[in-house]
Amino acid sequence: MKAVVYHGPKNISVKDIPDAVIEHPSDVLVQITTTNICGSDLHMYEGRTSFEKGKVFGHENLGKVIEVGAAVQTVKVGDYVCMPFNVACGHCENCERGQTAFCLNANPGAAGAAYGFAEMGPWQGGQAEVLRVPWADFNCLVLPKDAAEREDDYVMLSDIFPTGWHATELAGMKPGDSVAIYGAGPVGLMAAHSAAIKGASQIFVVDTHPDRLALAEKFGATAINAVGQQAVDKILELTDGRGTDCGCECVGYQCCDKHGHEDNSVTLNSLVGSTKATGGIGVVGVFVPQDPGAKDRLQQQGKMAFDYGNFWFKGQFMRTGQANVKAYNRNLARLIQHGRANPAAIVSHRLSLAEAPKAYEQFDKRAEGWTKVLLKP
Amino acid sequence: MKAVVYHGPKNISVKDIPDAVIEHPSDVLVQITTTNICGSDLHMYEGRTSFEKGKVFGHENLGKVIEVGAAVQTVKVGDYVCMPFNVACGHCENCERGQTAFCLNANPGAAGAAYGFAEMGPWQGGQAEVLRVPWADFNCLVLPKDAAEREDDYVMLSDIFPTGWHATELAGMKPGDSVAIYGAGPVGLMAAHSAAIKGASQIFVVDTHPDRLALAEKFGATAINAVGQQAVDKILELTDGRGTDCGCECVGYQCCDKHGHEDNSVTLNSLVGSTKATGGIGVVGVFVPQDPGAKDRLQQQGKMAFDYGNFWFKGQFMRTGQANVKAYNRNLARLIQHGRANPAAIVSHRLSLAEAPKAYEQFDKRAEGWTKVLLKP
Amino acid sequence: MKAVVYHGPKNISVKDIPDAVIEHPSDVLVQITTTNICGSDLHMYEGRTSFEKGKVFGHENLGKVIEVGAAVQTVKVGDYVCMPFNVACGHCENCERGQTAFCLNANPGAAGAAYGFAEMGPWQGGQAEVLRVPWADFNCLVLPKDAAEREDDYVMLSDIFPTGWHATELAGMKPGDSVAIYGAGPVGLMAAHSAAIKGASQIFVVDTHPDRLALAEKFGATAINAVGQQAVDKILELTDGRGTDCGCECVGYQCCDKHGHEDNSVTLNSLVGSTKATGGIGVVGVFVPQDPGAKDRLQQQGKMAFDYGNFWFKGQFMRTGQANVKAYNRNLARLIQHGRANPAAIVSHRLSLAEAPKAYEQFDKRAEGWTKVLLKP
Amino acid sequence: MKAVVYHGPKNISVKDIPDAVIEHPSDVLVQITTTNICGSDLHMYEGRTSFEKGKVFGHENLGKVIEVGAAVQTVKVGDYVCMPFNVACGHCENCERGQTAFCLNANPGAAGAAYGFAEMGPWQGGQAEVLRVPWADFNCLVLPKDAAEREDDYVMLSDIFPTGWHATELAGMKPGDSVAIYGAGPVGLMAAHSAAIKGASQIFVVDTHPDRLALAEKFGATAINAVGQQAVDKILELTDGRGTDCGCECVGYQCCDKHGHEDNSVTLNSLVGSTKATGGIGVVGVFVPQDPGAKDRLQQQGKMAFDYGNFWFKGQFMRTGQANVKAYNRNLARLIQHGRANPAAIVSHRLSLAEAPKAYEQFDKRAEGWTKVLLKP
Repeated sequence: MKAVVYHGPKNISVKDIPDAVIEHPSDVLVQITTTNICGSDLHMYEGRTSFEKGKVFGHENLGKVIEVGAAVQTVKVGDYVCMPFNVACGHCENCERGQTAFCLNANPGAAGAAYGFAEMGPWQGGQAEVLRVPWADFNCLVLPKDAAEREDDYVMLSDIFPTGWHATELAGMKPGDSVAIYGAGPVGLMAAHSAAIKGASQIFVVDTHPDRLALAEKFGATAINAVGQQAVDKILELTDGRGTDCGCECVGYQCCDKHGHEDNSVTLNSLVGSTKATGGIGVVGVFVPQDPGAKDRLQQQGKMAFDYGNFWFKGQFMRTGQANVKAYNRNLARLIQHGRANPAAIVSHRLSLAEAPKAYEQFDKRAEGWTKVLLKP
Repeated sequence: MKAVVYHGPKNISVKDIPDAVIEHPSDVLVQITTTNICGSDLHMYEGRTSFEKGKVFGHENLGKVIEVGAAVQTVKVGDYVCMPFNVACGHCENCERGQTAFCLNANPGAAGAAYGFAEMGPWQGGQAEVLRVPWADFNCLVLPKDAAEREDDYVMLSDIFPTGWHATELAGMKPGDSVAIYGAGPVGLMAAHSAAIKGASQIFVVDTHPDRLALAEKFGATAINAVGQQAVDKILELTDGRGTDCGCECVGYQCCDKHGHEDNSVTLNSLVGSTKATGGIGVVGVFVPQDPGAKDRLQQQGKMAFDYGNFWFKGQFMRTGQANVKAYNRNLARLIQHGRANPAAIVSHRLSLAEAPKAYEQFDKRAEGWTKVLLKP
Repeated sequence: MKAVVYHGPKNISVKDIPDAVIEHPSDVLVQITTTNICGSDLHMYEGRTSFEKGKVFGHENLGKVIEVGAAVQTVKVGDYVCMPFNVACGHCENCERGQTAFCLNANPGAAGAAYGFAEMGPWQGGQAEVLRVPWADFNCLVLPKDAAEREDDYVMLSDIFPTGWHATELAGMKPGDSVAIYGAGPVGLMAAHSAAIKGASQIFVVDTHPDRLALAEKFGATAINAVGQQAVDKILELTDGRGTDCGCECVGYQCCDKHGHEDNSVTLNSLVGSTKATGGIGVVGVFVPQDPGAKDRLQQQGKMAFDYGNFWFKGQFMRTGQANVKAYNRNLARLIQHGRANPAAIVSHRLSLAEAPKAYEQFDKRAEGWTKVLLKP
Repeated sequence: MKAVVYHGPKNISVKDIPDAVIEHPSDVLVQITTTNICGSDLHMYEGRTSFEKGKVFGHENLGKVIEVGAAVQTVKVGDYVCMPFNVACGHCENCERGQTAFCLNANPGAAGAAYGFAEMGPWQGGQAEVLRVPWADFNCLVLPKDAAEREDDYVMLSDIFPTGWHATELAGMKPGDSVAIYGAGPVGLMAAHSAAIKGASQIFVVDTHPDRLALAEKFGATAINAVGQQAVDKILELTDGRGTDCGCECVGYQCCDKHGHEDNSVTLNSLVGSTKATGGIGVVGVFVPQDPGAKDRLQQQGKMAFDYGNFWFKGQFMRTGQANVKAYNRNLARLIQHGRANPAAIVSHRLSLAEAPKAYEQFDKRAEGWTKVLLKP
């Protein structure tokens, strides 16, 4: 079968690899019909991770079940399914509490696994014709009847829609709250969409890319084209000096200061400043335990010069981590089904699998207008 | 000053009474500019309560502060304020936990007080030129700057908008959930509006008045013109047999069966039927400990032939009671201020104080089109 | 293998039946070493249910794994395991939210399944030499190393300890609260034990059996030997007229009034009376949708003459249903392991499987001192 | 009246100052019978804050009401009362949600006020014969009848018992959880006492003072005499490599590394290490926005070299800030009243007001055995 294979930094190709097969009675095989390129794929594409050569990309996957293992009971051949990017066993101590992003069995020795991802277990990605899905009864969301017509919306249930939603959950956002979202990439935009669906009274999105900020405004947000203290000042001004009730970090450790230099503390320290006393901060942007390629000594160690005194003095709280997709995907599917959510609004490109190398190249450059790329194998 | 005074069953008039005055250093006086007639005023109007002759109606009040007591520190003369219908001290064991609908000091011997209400303490109502507000720093919500232009929206913060919202909170409604709301009176309509703001995926409103159901549809709901088992069947059909995730009771003890006979169990037993196993039921419709005027013996004792076996077997939960308005009014004010809520959409009449007797008469008849009446003293 | 088999009302025997076998790749076989008789077994024993002749009793099971199916990944031969009484698939909409007592797959057409239970699916019970456990990775709790020495404590994790705990959770009990527990059977006693572990300030246990009340006092409770209004009055007196913060129903539909006549409303109406305004009521005692054998017409329909007016007026809430054992069993196991819980304190008898018929007979008579019977196959 | 007055670094005396008087109709005057010296008093005593000369110390106060203002309604002359250290208005946006540690009115321009505290508003302390208490109906907890006999327990409700409790709440501790508490000062000991009351399965207390660790063991904790990575390793060992479910920071910004050098990141980075993935960290130790006296440049700016990458990767959460005492003090009073809590177990000295200077000197030296000092004016 054909798949998008990693060969080394910025070197990928679509090539034939051995067909995916049922390896365990709980597996199913899914013929992929839509699979997205995610911003986090770029870390691996750029060679800044331990991603192995020969591995297949792709953790945002949707398709049709074509074969089921002997132990599978609920999922059936022919079902349209969307898989959370987290691979999870469904029965460990974390999974049973709904913390599927921290499964203790799917990536032995660590907490949490994913398809086609560095350090997230042995699972191949879905930028391919077929994907093997383990613990399939647990990891497949069987989609509503209109799945075929609305693939581009439903595929967002694999990652960015639940991840954006998770940001607002971690932040403790309640209806009527004001919220500041740092980062207008796909996840930040989905956080804005989520905040609007959940009844935020004011949504600020902070970024420096006008095309992305324009999309944020389509989701009902107020765009703030600024960085660091300037962003903080603007938010304070727009909230009568009060600050927002909560805030979301949707950028990650490669955030930059106003001079464009990487400084992993920029967005978090801004969030401490723009969030009110007692407010909450939700962090879904990725931060890493070590970052050998960073210039700053602290950052190399995975540390941050965090504005802790202000954080504590304001009695704020912060919750972090990858989204437990299964905690949200059923209800978000219902919002799509009943016309109350339209995450596909951010899709900029729908391409064939063969076009993947070109797409990675453009997306990696942050070429204008390349917001979200969907591959259709 | 002029006020709407009760003289006996279906007998009220607008007459001069002694001016409201500061009686305690924590009081303020508010010149009322908008005050609503509420469905619960009709119980008193009809003489089915212990409401005393000579008492002034009105617990949905908004106006301008014209005098403040010596101990008042935050509220100032000239402030536009909206008062929760609950009178609350702010410092008893219930108030300090936010349970202001169950204040232990404002109505000695009972839990919970209100302006102009039977058995809810000594407080006069606000269907008058001036209202005395006790514990004013606690009981006045100072409104945003656009208060004067949007009085009809903000006045809904006194009762029906928070009460409708409370119904969805008590029911445990989460974004993406489906919800069935029984009753399309003002509170039921506000529950539908609340559910839409909070991201419900499906909202069903059950009633038999086409004009009210039409309003429900404007708030994004699916209208269900049916009673009892018929309503249940329709909801099951529209949810693929699953039932709704949760439901709201917005009718109260005078609900009727399909023959139009009062039976206090009709809506609750329907809710048990139309709500899924593990689902929640929120009850803001009023139920009373005794109802001497009822025909049924159980109902006279305030009891109900409740479908308990099914309720327990389905592992459902139920939460009840008057809304703690202060738990919601600030955030709901922000939703109004930022254009995300428009509760005034249900207003059918804006009348002078002098027109109150006529308005009560029409409203009591459930005359078509008399959805919500605002008085402008 | 030998098993306790039902032949008809009050007619059981220990007899040979075909050996349990692996029927599905997700199954394991557990050699039972301790299996309890539960109060709910008596409903079936007495013939008041649809329990089929030939079926094996037993839903409180602990033992050693002796065989595992091909798809089982975590549970291993030789593991000491305790099974929740609920059989659950682990991946349906309810299981994934932790609502394992309402599994949608284990008992097709209904929500919730159990071993050896009427109307709870096709699963055989564990009062036998061997038990087949489906979805074994999900349904087996692998026990700590001291399992063999403390079987009598750990076996309580199958049902009554989590069920008693659940009662306090449903009631919303918080540390420092006062709580009234109606019923001093095994579940009520475990609710008292749970309340003490969780930091209740006052625990009242209401019953009329002095031997059981004595056990309640050992768990730190205040015993109240009274029924109905007398119990309510006593609790109000001991709480300075305030009522308890919350209350637990651990009796079920066969509760009796002070004359010893069955009246399913007695404990719930008492709970409304003895619980403060805004307080919570947790109901784990079983109530049934139909009760053809009842004398009262309402009760035959599964209905109850519930004191709804007072319930609503006090703004109380009520949560119900069977315990989701998996939501609690890991943490309760830790409390046992570290010496902070000792549920086996209520065990009155440890018998062989062969003694089961005698045990059922005595237990069914509520013979004094027969609090909790453990069978050791 | 006599009071403990600050004259400059390590320079205090007991001297006559003008009598406290009612300054506002909502005030009461309390004749202080017990008032504690708190660890946080030492920051001011040492001159490391902006505490003004001439100001009176004391934020842990208990006594008898001797005069009430005209607007006071609930508190009466003769009542035994204990005051939360936070001064709070009761009606601002934060107070009404129970966030009384972040009152917006009691310390204009900031969020949160206290008696006798640097930068926490104009309020005098209670290490004096009489204390003026503003918004007295809100700020006085009227104590149970046994108040006079159990003053030493009840006075702990003013600060350290609720603050220790708050640490476990912020950490998200649930019954059955394991918890690591860093710091065995009075607050850490109260956190351990709280964790035991709330049903922790394992409690670890980390410190290097054997006398304090011995007290921790009396409250049911396992003592860990270690710093930094050594403490982490020990905790991992005692939890089978799993880490604790949650952890509490009860030290603050002056924590030290294993060489005894101040390093504000030591305990927090240890907590990230010793807490499991998805676990919570509660921080009640004080951290400051600026610390000009620190040696490290980051610390001077109130910043911390925080191990953020690991924190995020583990999906942990952290909640911070001063305790909202009123959120807990009523229920903790009940635990004391009913014999389920005995916080006075940590009291080492009961002295007269005149002995205050000597007590500060010894306590500031961390002289062995000076755990907790109570002054009896």
